[in-house]
Amino acid sequence: MIKELHSYAFGIGTKNSNGEIIEVFYPRPKVDVNELETKRLLEISSLKTAGFIELSERQADQIRESFKEGLFEDQAGIFDGVSAAKTSILVLQVEDVAPTTIPEAYLKLHLLSHRLAKPNSINLNGLFGVLKNIAWTNHGPIDLIDLPSSQLAARAKGEMLSIDSVDKFPRMTNYFVPSGVRIADTSRVRLGAYIGDGTTVMHEGFVNFNAGTEGVAMIEGRISAGVLVGSGSDLGGSSSTMGTLSGGGTELVSVGENCLIGANAGIGFPLADGCTIEAGLYVTAGMKINRLDENGVLIEVVKAKDISSVKNLVFRRNSLSGNVECIPDASSISLNEELHSHN
Amino acid sequence: MIKELHSYAFGIGTKNSNGEIIEVFYPRPKVDVNELETKRLLEISSLKTAGFIELSERQADQIRESFKEGLFEDQAGIFDGVSAAKTSILVLQVEDVAPTTIPEAYLKLHLLSHRLAKPNSINLNGLFGVLKNIAWTNHGPIDLIDLPSSQLAARAKGEMLSIDSVDKFPRMTNYFVPSGVRIADTSRVRLGAYIGDGTTVMHEGFVNFNAGTEGVAMIEGRISAGVLVGSGSDLGGSSSTMGTLSGGGTELVSVGENCLIGANAGIGFPLADGCTIEAGLYVTAGMKINRLDENGVLIEVVKAKDISSVKNLVFRRNSLSGNVECIPDASSISLNEELHSHN
Amino acid sequence: MIKELHSYAFGIGTKNSNGEIIEVFYPRPKVDVNELETKRLLEISSLKTAGFIELSERQADQIRESFKEGLFEDQAGIFDGVSAAKTSILVLQVEDVAPTTIPEAYLKLHLLSHRLAKPNSINLNGLFGVLKNIAWTNHGPIDLIDLPSSQLAARAKGEMLSIDSVDKFPRMTNYFVPSGVRIADTSRVRLGAYIGDGTTVMHEGFVNFNAGTEGVAMIEGRISAGVLVGSGSDLGGSSSTMGTLSGGGTELVSVGENCLIGANAGIGFPLADGCTIEAGLYVTAGMKINRLDENGVLIEVVKAKDISSVKNLVFRRNSLSGNVECIPDASSISLNEELHSHN
Repeated sequence: MIKELHSYAFGIGTKNSNGEIIEVFYPRPKVDVNELETKRLLEISSLKTAGFIELSERQADQIRESFKEGLFEDQAGIFDGVSAAKTSILVLQVEDVAPTTIPEAYLKLHLLSHRLAKPNSINLNGLFGVLKNIAWTNHGPIDLIDLPSSQLAARAKGEMLSIDSVDKFPRMTNYFVPSGVRIADTSRVRLGAYIGDGTTVMHEGFVNFNAGTEGVAMIEGRISAGVLVGSGSDLGGSSSTMGTLSGGGTELVSVGENCLIGANAGIGFPLADGCTIEAGLYVTAGMKINRLDENGVLIEVVKAKDISSVKNLVFRRNSLSGNVECIPDASSISLNEELHSHN
Repeated sequence: MIKELHSYAFGIGTKNSNGEIIEVFYPRPKVDVNELETKRLLEISSLKTAGFIELSERQADQIRESFKEGLFEDQAGIFDGVSAAKTSILVLQVEDVAPTTIPEAYLKLHLLSHRLAKPNSINLNGLFGVLKNIAWTNHGPIDLIDLPSSQLAARAKGEMLSIDSVDKFPRMTNYFVPSGVRIADTSRVRLGAYIGDGTTVMHEGFVNFNAGTEGVAMIEGRISAGVLVGSGSDLGGSSSTMGTLSGGGTELVSVGENCLIGANAGIGFPLADGCTIEAGLYVTAGMKINRLDENGVLIEVVKAKDISSVKNLVFRRNSLSGNVECIPDASSISLNEELHSHN
Repeated sequence: MIKELHSYAFGIGTKNSNGEIIEVFYPRPKVDVNELETKRLLEISSLKTAGFIELSERQADQIRESFKEGLFEDQAGIFDGVSAAKTSILVLQVEDVAPTTIPEAYLKLHLLSHRLAKPNSINLNGLFGVLKNIAWTNHGPIDLIDLPSSQLAARAKGEMLSIDSVDKFPRMTNYFVPSGVRIADTSRVRLGAYIGDGTTVMHEGFVNFNAGTEGVAMIEGRISAGVLVGSGSDLGGSSSTMGTLSGGGTELVSVGENCLIGANAGIGFPLADGCTIEAGLYVTAGMKINRLDENGVLIEVVKAKDISSVKNLVFRRNSLSGNVECIPDASSISLNEELHSHN
C-alpha cells in the first residue's frame, strides 16, 4: 500500500483550441506528503501511480471537505483561486518518475523553482518531448496553432499581441518568485531554475532549468542546464559555464563556493571552492595549463579537469608569454554587502 | 506591359497622432504573383511601380469580388481581419526596388521573415532612413512624439505603459512566427530576420534583420546583419559574427554548414563548412594563424581570411604557446536530437 | 534663508497593500529652481531640507493658483495628469543630499536619465538600501508581498501576470525616453542611466544606473555603474567595462571619445580618447603589456593602468606570440552615418 506521495499540487491549466492542456500553474506544490493526505488524494483522484485529473465540482468539494478535517492546511489559501478557474488540476506522483504529460512536466519544473528539489535530483527524462512549444504573450500562453488567428484578431481591433517568448519553457517568475532574489531580466530565468536565497541575477545573467545557485550569489553569466553554483560565488558578465546539452563537452560542470568567474570568461570543467578565472579567459576541460606554486615556479603541466578538485586557484593567461597558468590564491573574494543585504 | 509583380501584401497599419503610418502588419505577403492577380491589383490600386494605398471600402469590395473569381485564394482567410481594421493597406512592388515608404519597408522585412526572400537577396537600400524610431509597448506601437502624453495618461489612470523597445525594427514574432522554430527571448530577433525551419534561438542568441539561418541550427550567439548560417551549425553562448554596419570590419562574414563557434568565441571572416572555433577565441579576418597538418606540423603562417574556403578546420589558441593555430578535424559536430526534434 | 532648490518634481506614486509608496514617476523633474518658485514650494509643502509630501487637494489647488502667477510654467502641461492620480507627490531637495526615502531616490534616478545630472555628479549614498525590490509587471509595479495573491487572482480569471523584472531598478524607458536615442531592448537600461543624444543601445547593450554615454555612441556592450563613455565611441557586442560594485576591481573605469572596444573584449582600466581594444581581448588594470612604437619596436613593458592617459593606442594580443601589446594608431574609427543620423 502507498503510504507517502513524492509530490502533488493543485493548479490552473490553459488549454488550446483543441481542448488540450498546454501549461499549468501550481501556486503551492508539495513534497513528502503525509499518510492521511496521500490516502485522500488517491481516493479522490482514483490515480494509482503518477498523473493528473481535471477537478470536477464534486472533487473540488471533497477537497474542501478535507480542509475541515485539517487536511491540506497549507493549500487552503490558494484552493479557492484554483477551483474558481476554468481548468483546475490535481497532479500527483507516488514516486519520482519521468514525466509523461504536461501537468506532470510542469510539476517537476515547479518543484525545482520552489526549492523543493535540487538540480540533478529528480527524474526529468523525456521532458523536452513532453513540453509544448508555446507563444508566451502579454495575454497569456497561446498554442502556436492558435497564434496566427489570435494575432490577426488583435490587430483588427487595433491591439497587438506582444510575444515574449516562443519556447517550451516559460519564465520562472510568471509562476513563482522565490524569497530573497532579484532577477533583473526575468526572460532569462526559465521555470525549473533553482535560485538560492540571496541570489541576484543581473541583466546578463541566465539560468536554465535544472540549474541554479545554492545561496547568496551574483550571477551576470550563464548557468547551463545541470550546473549548480555554490554559495558566495560571482559569475561575471557574459561568463559561461559549458553545457552538455548542445555543442559543449561531456564533462558536467559545476561551480564551488566563493568562486569568481570573471567577465567574458568561461569554464568547461568543475571549479573547486575559492577558485578564480581571470576576466576574458575560457578554460576548457582538456586545456593544458602551467601549474605554478605560490612563488610562480612551474610544478607541472596539467589538464584543467585534472585539477578540478584543487581549491583556491587563480587561472589566468600570462599576458607576456601567452600561456595559461594557475597559481594558489590565499586571498578570497567577498560579495558586496550592500548589493546583497537588501534582496 | 507588367505581367508579374515581385510581391504584394494586404496589411493593417498603425498611425501616429499626425495621421502618418508608422508600421504595418502583413499576415500573408506574397511573391511571384500570377498574371491575372497582377492585373487586378494594378487596376484596383492604380499603382504603377511600387507603393501602397489605404484600402477604401470600395477597393476592399473589389478584392472580395475577386475571391469569387478564384483570385487571391490564399488571402481569403486573412482579408476579413485586414479589412475590418481602421487602416487597411495594400502594398505592392512590380520589381524589387529600394523601399521609399514605411509600408514598402515593412513589406521587405516581412518577405525575409516569411522566408520568401533570403538575406542579401533583396533591395534594402535606404531602409534605415525610411523606418521610424518607435516605442513598442504593451499597448502596441506608439510614435515617440505621442509617447510622453500616453505615458502620463496611463499613469494618471493607475496603469503603466511598459515599453519593450525603442527602435526602428520591431520583434519579428509580433508579426510572424515561422514554422519549426523556438525563440526563447523574442526581443532579440528583429523583423527581417530569416529563421530556418528547425532553428532554436536561445536566450543569448540574437538575429538582426537581413540575416539568419538556413535550416536546423542552435543559436546562442549573435548573427549580425548580412550574415547567414548554414544548416547543422551551432553558435555558442555570446559568440559573435562580426558585422559590417558598425565598428566591425569590411569582410562580409558567413557561417557554413555543421560549424561550431564556441561560447564567447567570434569570427571576422567567412567560415567554411565543418569548421570549429574553440570557446573563447576570436578570430579576426587579418589574424595570422599557424596552420598545422593533421600531425600538428606547421604548414604555413596564414591570415584567417586566406583559408576561409578550407573546410573542417579547428581553430584554437594553444594554451601553452599562446599562438593561434588551426588543424584539420576529421570528426564532426552533431546537434542534440532531442533538443531539435520537437520544435 | 534658502534661495534656490537643488531640484524638485511633481509625480505619481504607486502604493503596496500596506499603503507604502514603492515607486514614483516624475514626468518633468527640475533642477536649479528660481527664488520665487523655491519660496512657494517650501511654503506649500512645509518641507525644510529634503523630502516629499503627498499632495492634498488644497495643495494641488495652491500649485494651480501659482500657474496664474507665471510660476512653474514648464509643469503646466503635466500637472493635470499628476494631480488626477490617486497618489500625487511633490518631492524636493534644498541641497543634493543622500536619498532617505523612495520618492527622493526616484528623483535622483530621474535627474540622471533626464540628463539633468551627469553620472558620478550627485549623491547616491545608501540608494540600494532605500529602494524596494519590486515585481515590474504588465499591470505595473507590484510589491513582492502582494505578488502571490495577484498572480493567483489573475490566473483564476484566465489571465496571466507577466513579470518583466524583479529588481530595485525599473527600466528607464517606462519613466522617460530621452531625445535622439534608440534602445533596442529596454529591459537592459535601468532608470538612472544617462543616455546621450545620438546613442543607440543595441540588444546586447546594457547601461546601469549612474552610468552612460556623453553623446553619439553605439553600445552593444555593458556599461557598468559609474562608467561614462565619451562621444563617438563604439562598444562591441558583449564587450565589458569592469565595474567596481561586485567582483570587479577597484579602478574606476571610463571610456574616452572615439574609442572602439571590440566584440567580446573588455577593459578594467580607464581608456583614453581614440583607443581601440581588439575583439576578444580583455585588458585588466594590472595586465602587463608590451608597448610598441609605430614601427613595432618594443619601448617598454607597462601595466595597462599606467598608460591609461595615452591616446590613440590599439591593444591586441599578438596571435603568433600570444603576448598582449599596444601600438599607436593613426587612423580613427568613425561610426556609421546612416545608423546614427536617424534616431
